[in-house]
This record gives sequence, structure tokens and C-alpha cells, in this order.
Amino acid sequence: MRILILGGDGYLGWPTAMNLSASGHNVAVADNYLRRRLYREENVEPLWTVPNLHDRSAAWKNKSGQAIKVYIGDLREWEFVEEIIRKFEPQGIVHYAEQPSAPYSMLNRKAAMLTLSNNLTVTANLIFATREYCPDAHIVKLGTMGEYGTPNIDIEEGWIEVDHKGRRQKFLFPRQAGSLYHTTKIMDTDLLWFYTRIWNLRVTDLMQGPVYGIFTEESGNDCSLLPFFNYDEIFGTVLNRFVVQAVAGYPLTVYGRGGQTRGYLNLIDTLNCVRLSLETPAQKGELRIFNQFTETFSVNQLAERVQQAGRAMSLNVTIQHIDNPRLEAEEHHYNPAHTGLIDLGLEPHYLSEDVLIRMMQFVQKHKEKVSGDKIFKKVTWS
Amino acid sequence: MRILILGGDGYLGWPTAMNLSASGHNVAVADNYLRRRLYREENVEPLWTVPNLHDRSAAWKNKSGQAIKVYIGDLREWEFVEEIIRKFEPQGIVHYAEQPSAPYSMLNRKAAMLTLSNNLTVTANLIFATREYCPDAHIVKLGTMGEYGTPNIDIEEGWIEVDHKGRRQKFLFPRQAGSLYHTTKIMDTDLLWFYTRIWNLRVTDLMQGPVYGIFTEESGNDCSLLPFFNYDEIFGTVLNRFVVQAVAGYPLTVYGRGGQTRGYLNLIDTLNCVRLSLETPAQKGELRIFNQFTETFSVNQLAERVQQAGRAMSLNVTIQHIDNPRLEAEEHHYNPAHTGLIDLGLEPHYLSEDVLIRMMQFVQKHKEKVSGDKIFKKVTWS
Repeated sequence: MRILILGGDGYLGWPTAMNLSASGHNVAVADNYLRRRLYREENVEPLWTVPNLHDRSAAWKNKSGQAIKVYIGDLREWEFVEEIIRKFEPQGIVHYAEQPSAPYSMLNRKAAMLTLSNNLTVTANLIFATREYCPDAHIVKLGTMGEYGTPNIDIEEGWIEVDHKGRRQKFLFPRQAGSLYHTTKIMDTDLLWFYTRIWNLRVTDLMQGPVYGIFTEESGNDCSLLPFFNYDEIFGTVLNRFVVQAVAGYPLTVYGRGGQTRGYLNLIDTLNCVRLSLETPAQKGELRIFNQFTETFSVNQLAERVQQAGRAMSLNVTIQHIDNPRLEAEEHHYNPAHTGLIDLGLEPHYLSEDVLIRMMQFVQKHKEKVSGDKIFKKVTWS
Repeated sequence: MRILILGGDGYLGWPTAMNLSASGHNVAVADNYLRRRLYREENVEPLWTVPNLHDRSAAWKNKSGQAIKVYIGDLREWEFVEEIIRKFEPQGIVHYAEQPSAPYSMLNRKAAMLTLSNNLTVTANLIFATREYCPDAHIVKLGTMGEYGTPNIDIEEGWIEVDHKGRRQKFLFPRQAGSLYHTTKIMDTDLLWFYTRIWNLRVTDLMQGPVYGIFTEESGNDCSLLPFFNYDEIFGTVLNRFVVQAVAGYPLTVYGRGGQTRGYLNLIDTLNCVRLSLETPAQKGELRIFNQFTETFSVNQLAERVQQAGRAMSLNVTIQHIDNPRLEAEEHHYNPAHTGLIDLGLEPHYLSEDVLIRMMQFVQKHKEKVSGDKIFKKVTWS
């Protein structure tokens, strides 16, 4: 299948590209290096340097014999989107091309406007180009579990039947997010759902929880093929941050009481979810929604897991509860459904002590590069 | 109260400005004449020419002795928004500054992107400027009943309690709109609701049905004070279009079977709803939502009302069912709540034969300017 990955340079983008390429698909990636510009501007560079996309593509060709086509450009610009979609004629499109950080979106007005405008403009351009040049292509868009927030009822997989005054209607599960970033993802869903209905697009929306991990089958621990690894508060996801804090001797920064519960998954499972979705596409006119995570943890539970793995490595890992810079419930109901991807064939890679130890051992090699002032920059929501 | 009206040049904007000014408020209007540019570009000029805002403000000063301050500029530009909010220090802000036409938003890619970018950028700039310079100001934002679509359950006033598997949660009433324009209004609500929670804004969202009418108490039938009156398919609302079609001898263009039911209101009631909302503001941290209409009609019922009023004026009004260019249910459940504004003191001006006859008599004076090729331009949704 010809698969175009928008945002192919990111933490998920590049590993996805290799995984699909290794599975025999014809893969192209598009990116404008926005994420690299932002982490540089905010002085939160990842733990190791990653080559640019052309060099990564060459390294992958060298390792696998497979080519990954690289398009560099800004997907906010219609001419670029139009050009690559006309040229590549994708059958599947993975849409990762969004400003992906909640704290970044809350940093200041300019960061908020960049997030809003980037995420919506790219999604709209994708919709228009798909309709024009490849109306049968299957769009797999990365959503987020954060769109749902933490309601007091069970979270269903994208949709809910509401009984009200003796009548019944199926709706998109009501969304109420905790950051501007997450709110733009709600808007993306609104936009895709509208045009799916009107123009018979075929779309899968993957409501993903926070991802952790470094290695995939394709990368091994080859530095030229590894993804970015951010350990800072802005671009680092919580478990990755804790791993680095543990190794570098910083207390784990648990926000508030630490009862915040989310659904997590290993980077390897993200790739499998995306590939499984592509290989069994949504129908024309269907917005198919999966909740993409494999197990739920509270932040306290994650911190304890990391502490325990640290003990096995003779690291003295401490936990520090700090004032929560975010506005979020620190104790709440959380019972989201997540059977759709299992039904498609997903075999989860659960969080084990081995997984954590392998991450921590690798991070230890880069320990001297950890910079304390990047770990907690106190981006407040209020 | 110092009240700033964003989009003060529009069909609702200018009549609102005069109404608030007549009620003793200190009013300023801001606009970039976007709507005028669009109707010119699409060759759907309104039935009569209206003076620019400076001239209207002078005419109003002449009539009432009251000044209305005029700011001309583009609210998508932060510097302009910042400047006028810092200068005027509004206590109430009426947000009408959106591309308001569903058919326009479905015209082509450029029109869609203008709608998306204009409506979200202006709303976001307003939020940021309010937080920065007038955090206690009350934002009254024009929403639309079209955000709800036509679900198979009763539409509540903004919110719904959902019982699910033995638990309960209050949500924004689920929204699913029928055009890109309406979808951008859903996104606006998402955006305002997020920042209301985070930053304790005070916001009233008026979910308005289609408005009809020409005259208000302030305008009388003084041509220098009347609003735009569009009778075309793109910018004209349905009852206004029918009135013009009836007078000019065109069959009334009923889309499809004509069972589409919506909540309608007289322009005079729009002004009263907005003023009542401003004079009893929402609390800090509250997103207050009212469904703003006074009575529901199917399109067939509207056509029959106009036909009947025509008969009283010895006009032979015919009705033509044409292929529906929109994708919408032509028969559906529709029972939306609308008690909030009545509770605030609204005294509805219902649609009567007298109201229709007065509109038709006035339109008759401009009959020779009606251009047949503007009436139905067939902007299709698919």
C-alpha cells in the first residue's frame, strides 16, 4: 500500500515510517521540522541528536534495503499538500502533523495561536486534498484520549447512545479537554466528522493515551534510527520523563496528589495500532474511532514502577509531589473502553520491569547530557 | 456599560449597536467590512445600499444625539484587537465577527479556509485580549442552533445530563452540524468553554436560529440606518429570501420536501436577547448558554405564511420544491428548549401577517433591483 505519513519526523512519525516500510508498504514522509524548531526555541532539546529525515531515510535504506521517500515542506501551505498528494497518490495517509504538546500550547499566546492554526489548517488541507486527488484513501488520524477528559461516566470508544426523555440518539462521545492542544484535537475530530459525512471520506481516529518507549523492532538501538527522546516537561511524555529523572538522580516530579489516571502504551504498540488500522481500513463515509492504549496507571503508580525498576538497578529513586501546574482532577473516575484494536489483532506489549530497565540502561549512556533546568520549567495553565 | 461590538457592520451588528446605544450604553463597533467584500465578490449584493460605518454612526448621532465609536480593522490581527480593547476598556463584548454563511462556507476550498481561519482566529484573539486587558468583561458570543443539528432527542439549552451505566455526568449538549460554517461555531464553543474553565472568563453563548426582519425601533425605515438585506441563497436567511421572491414574482424556493424545521426569530428579538444577556451577565467561570429563537416552523410552513400574506396583498405567490443542494434531513424530530431568555425578560415578537406585509411593502419599493440570477446560485454541499 502507498502510505504517506504527515509529520514523519516526530517521535511517532519516523518509527511508524520504518515499521510500515518493513511490513512491505511503500512509504513517504512529509515534515517541516516544526517540532525541532520548537524544542530548540524553548531550549528543551532531546536527550540525543537525531539525523534529519534525508539522513534517516538513507540509514534505513542501508539497513533494510527499502526506500522511504522524503518531502520537506509546510503542510499549512496548500500548494505543498496538493503537490505531494498528487505525486505520491497515497492509498493510506497517517496524520501526525500537529503541534503535539499540551504544555507548549499553554505557554503563551503565540504558542497557542501556532497550535490552533497549525493543527486545524493542516487537517483542513488534508481533507481538501484527499477529496480532490485520492477520495478513496484511508486517513488515519492521531487523536488523543485527552479529548474525552475525565468525565464521571465510563468513556466509550468514540461514540455513545444517549437516552433522553424517551428517545435515543447516537452521538460522538462528548469531549471536554484539559489543554488548548487537546481542544484543537476535538476540533480536528469535528472537522473530519463533518466532511466524512458530507464527502464520504474514510477515516480512522486513534484516541491515543501517552506513549512511552525508545526502541522498536526496526530501530534496535541504532542511534541513526532512534526517535527523538524528550525528557523535558514540554515535549516529554510522563513515563519517559520519569525514566530520565530516575537515571539522572532527580526526584520524580509527580504533579499534585498523583491520582491522575490515564491509558498508556508502548511505542511499539502505537506502530502496531496504526498498521493494523491501515491494513483493515474504515469504510467510505465511516469515522471509525479506537481508544488506543493498553493499560491504565495513575501517575503515582507510574512513579512507583520506575522507583522499583530503579531499585533493581541500585538507583536510589525518590518521588516528589510538586504543585500541579495544570488544572486537572487529581482523583477521578476513569474506565475507558479499549477493545477495538484488540479485535483488529493488537497484541499488547505491557509495561514490565524489563521494559523500564532496558530504557534506563540506554538512558544511562546519555546521563551526562541530562540538564536539570530542562526537567521542570513550570508551564502553568492559569 | 461600555460595550464593544465585534462585527458591528453586519445584519445584526449595526442594529444591535443602535439598540444598545438607545438604551443608554456607551457603544463602539469594530469591523473590516469582510461581509461587504464577500457579497461583492460573489455578486450577491443586498437589495439596498447601506452607508459605511462612519456614515451610519454620523446618521445615528444626528437622529439620537448618541455617539457610536467606529474602529475599522481586521480582528484576525492581534495588534488591532489589542489596541481597541486597551483603548475602549469594554465591560461587555458582543462577538458577531464571523463569516456567517453556511452556503458560503461550502462554496469552495478558499471560502472554507477563510471561514475556518477567520472564525477561530478572531475568537482566539478575543479570548486572549479579554484575559489580558479586561478579564471581568462579559463576552456575548453569537452561536447558532445549527450547532446541534437535528438529533432524534429533544435539544436542551446548551447542556445535558447523561446517565450511563449507573453513573451521571453533565456535558455540553452534543453538537453535530450541517455545514462547515456551523462546524466552526462548534469549535468556537469548544474554545470558549475551555478558556472559561481555565481562566474564569464570563461568557454567554446565544444559540440563535435564523433571523428575519428589516426594521427595528431605532432604524424605523430610515435608509441610512437599515441593515443589509440579502435575498440571495448565500447570505440571505430563508424568510427574507421568501419575502423578496414573493414580491418579485419568483416561486418560493423550498429545498426538497420542505419539512426542515428550525427555530426562528425577529431581528428585534435578537437585539432584545443580546441586550438582556448583557444587562444580566454570566458569572465568572460560567459559560451560560441560551437557545435564541421564539417559534419553530418548517420551511413549508414559512412558505405558506408568505403565500398567505401575499394573497392579502393581491400577489400570486407560488411555491416550487427544488432539489435540495444541502445534505440535511427533510423530515426530523425537533423539540428544542428555549426558556432561558424568556426567564431573563424577553417578550417575543411573533411572526404575524402584519410583520410579513410590512416587510413585503417595503421590499416592493426596491422590487426593480431584484436580480433573478442572485436568488438561487445552487451552492451544493456534495
